[in-house]
Amino acid sequence: MHRRDFNRTLLSGTAALALPGLQHLPAALRVDAARISLHLTALSQFGKNPQGGVSRVAYTDADRLGREAALGWMREAELAVSIDAAGNLVGRRPGRDASLKPLVLGSHIDSVPSGGNYDGDVGSLSAIEVARTLAVSGTVLRHPLEVILFENEEGGTTGSHALATGLTAADLDVVSQSGKTIREGIRFLGGDPDRLASVRRAKGDIAAYLELHIEQGGTLDEAKLPIGVVLGIVGIRHWEVTVEGFANHAGTTPMNRRRDALLVAARCIDIVNRTVRSIPGRQVGTVGWLRVEPGAYNVIPGKVVFGLELRDLEDAKIRELFQRIRGECLRLAREGGTTISFQESPRANAPALTDPKIRRTIADAARRMRLATLALPSGAGHDAQEMARLGPVGMIFIPSVGGISHSPKEFSRPGDIENGANVLLQTLLALDAQ
Amino acid sequence: MHRRDFNRTLLSGTAALALPGLQHLPAALRVDAARISLHLTALSQFGKNPQGGVSRVAYTDADRLGREAALGWMREAELAVSIDAAGNLVGRRPGRDASLKPLVLGSHIDSVPSGGNYDGDVGSLSAIEVARTLAVSGTVLRHPLEVILFENEEGGTTGSHALATGLTAADLDVVSQSGKTIREGIRFLGGDPDRLASVRRAKGDIAAYLELHIEQGGTLDEAKLPIGVVLGIVGIRHWEVTVEGFANHAGTTPMNRRRDALLVAARCIDIVNRTVRSIPGRQVGTVGWLRVEPGAYNVIPGKVVFGLELRDLEDAKIRELFQRIRGECLRLAREGGTTISFQESPRANAPALTDPKIRRTIADAARRMRLATLALPSGAGHDAQEMARLGPVGMIFIPSVGGISHSPKEFSRPGDIENGANVLLQTLLALDAQ
Repeated sequence: MHRRDFNRTLLSGTAALALPGLQHLPAALRVDAARISLHLTALSQFGKNPQGGVSRVAYTDADRLGREAALGWMREAELAVSIDAAGNLVGRRPGRDASLKPLVLGSHIDSVPSGGNYDGDVGSLSAIEVARTLAVSGTVLRHPLEVILFENEEGGTTGSHALATGLTAADLDVVSQSGKTIREGIRFLGGDPDRLASVRRAKGDIAAYLELHIEQGGTLDEAKLPIGVVLGIVGIRHWEVTVEGFANHAGTTPMNRRRDALLVAARCIDIVNRTVRSIPGRQVGTVGWLRVEPGAYNVIPGKVVFGLELRDLEDAKIRELFQRIRGECLRLAREGGTTISFQESPRANAPALTDPKIRRTIADAARRMRLATLALPSGAGHDAQEMARLGPVGMIFIPSVGGISHSPKEFSRPGDIENGANVLLQTLLALDAQ
Repeated sequence: MHRRDFNRTLLSGTAALALPGLQHLPAALRVDAARISLHLTALSQFGKNPQGGVSRVAYTDADRLGREAALGWMREAELAVSIDAAGNLVGRRPGRDASLKPLVLGSHIDSVPSGGNYDGDVGSLSAIEVARTLAVSGTVLRHPLEVILFENEEGGTTGSHALATGLTAADLDVVSQSGKTIREGIRFLGGDPDRLASVRRAKGDIAAYLELHIEQGGTLDEAKLPIGVVLGIVGIRHWEVTVEGFANHAGTTPMNRRRDALLVAARCIDIVNRTVRSIPGRQVGTVGWLRVEPGAYNVIPGKVVFGLELRDLEDAKIRELFQRIRGECLRLAREGGTTISFQESPRANAPALTDPKIRRTIADAARRMRLATLALPSGAGHDAQEMARLGPVGMIFIPSVGGISHSPKEFSRPGDIENGANVLLQTLLALDAQ
């Protein structure tokens, strides 16, 4: 079906729902898409950059001001809001059965440096709008509802990690991209790093966690499909790779006597790409940063350090790819008269699969709204992967135009955002009824 | 012949020359090697670094203090010393025939950051010792003699360029590695950037220029030969190469939809190496620095800028290699969904050939001292290439152990330095007699 057909279907559906008397039937409930748009625009002012995106890095003034605005919107949605000890914004709406564990909706509003206006923001503002829709329609769920805007997702899902796993003293000492340590940042947002134990939750403490997010890839956009049902969040492993050669004069050292660390690193970067592409599947491998020492026109590079990242839904595949890459790079390093070493980062993200029943519930909710779905992995990390430790999780994706993300050019169409927020609402209602 | 045999020959020769009455015969004159060693050690204190080398970058306090020490040694060598408007230290010794143009000995004492104690220093202190040997022995040449310690050789042969070509206002505005502009640096050393016209010399203003220098490569050391007769100083061209792809999320962008600027740059670096090695000759090509934007584990590099340097004694070969590299890189960039552009640096060094007659004079002087010679190009730039615009030049190389230079591990043996200084002295005497 062509993309535009969905929109047409939805628009006629929305018109039908505007008839008086239908609003209070949960199956017919719809979000106010105009309000989400308004809030997205309002939020985009905090950390606005000249390219039309935002640099709302966690723990900066822009981040705190954005969170204060969101707190106001949560209160307008009749949520009882508090800032927890980890600095997360938590809004609560009581359910009819206080003995039930909460259904949790969440996402984040911090951005990468030079980021866009949709990553995190769409899910956060839609979750608030879902709560508001319940409040306006007088709908009371069986389960308590929580809407959580996690802090510092982009810097390593810090806020959700605090809930699901806990932060160590070493975690708190890490200097974030804001220049503040995580400890200082949490305090800056109104949290209390000395009371982090109060936010820890145990497995089973949530009934379910749902997150709406932009895809950040081009799969839905290219397939012209409006809703993605996320199979899981890929595992991520990082290695710091060091090539050591010998820095020497670039004019006086013949080509056959060089131990050029950058030449070997360059060949390894090519091998990473070829190896990852040599087997079928959706695995990805990236060298995203690289440093040359000493770094001058006229000096043969003596040392190069670069970052290797591998992602897949299966950790075994990541490990197998790494062993192949490592083997090839060791050979290249030897041939180039250099050494190479791989230091794995201790903070790996294990793959986190979503709950099959929630996946079916999302797909059913979309189908009832005549929205076609596609099951796909999430290549990006999300707070959902942390929350998967506490209970069943589900994720809904909407298209990113051109697959662009982490960029001021990031864009999702208003119609797609509306669809996503309504699927979030309907999935929540269906889970509440199960 | 084995390396040690030369030293033995030289030592017995030196012993013979210690007989009274021989010192005043110019052909038997020898430098005082112990004084050169002493001055090398004294000079190594200015800008000393923990690795045992020096960081005596031009226009820093260490540079100025080193130059003040050298000025004292020049005066002890009975040179009439002045600081010219370009900040060069110029020592003069009159000749018998004031109508003759001067014979000039020179080098530099500034270093690269984290440099060693031999590059420039050996030639500078040997030139001073040659002047002192003339003074002590009462030898008066036919030609006036000049010993020049040029300023900021490592930052682009600034001092010798001022003499041979002149510095433009744009040259003076360049910020040097010291943080000072060239203009500020010249003033800092006691020069006067408003009076630079006073230092300009015309073609024919010198009888000859001679420079002793460490090889900075491993050719002499590997061949176990004590003296190199430099054929010429290679030409150098620099390009800033920019690869533009598209920065995107490393988790969500499938491998076949990436426009990875670092992957393309890596393949270009490999091509530079393969192309330069694909034809016979002593040409070299280096990628010494590289910058990735934005530069994070989880972002596909959107832009990479790197420095390409090519050197050869023939400019035509440099141009041919560049065209081949450019063609291959344009193809790689297209295949990788990126663009690539090459911006050539305006300040290229043209190849500078040494004078054939001076080369023969150096080789003859070495042969008389029973020192074997090897003719070889200089891969490094030197003040001699600037001075070649003014008259015939010659360069003498001594071995660099392991070919190491621009490094605290740079080393030349005292015996080799003594040989080099004596060949410098004897070549000067022979040129004076021609």
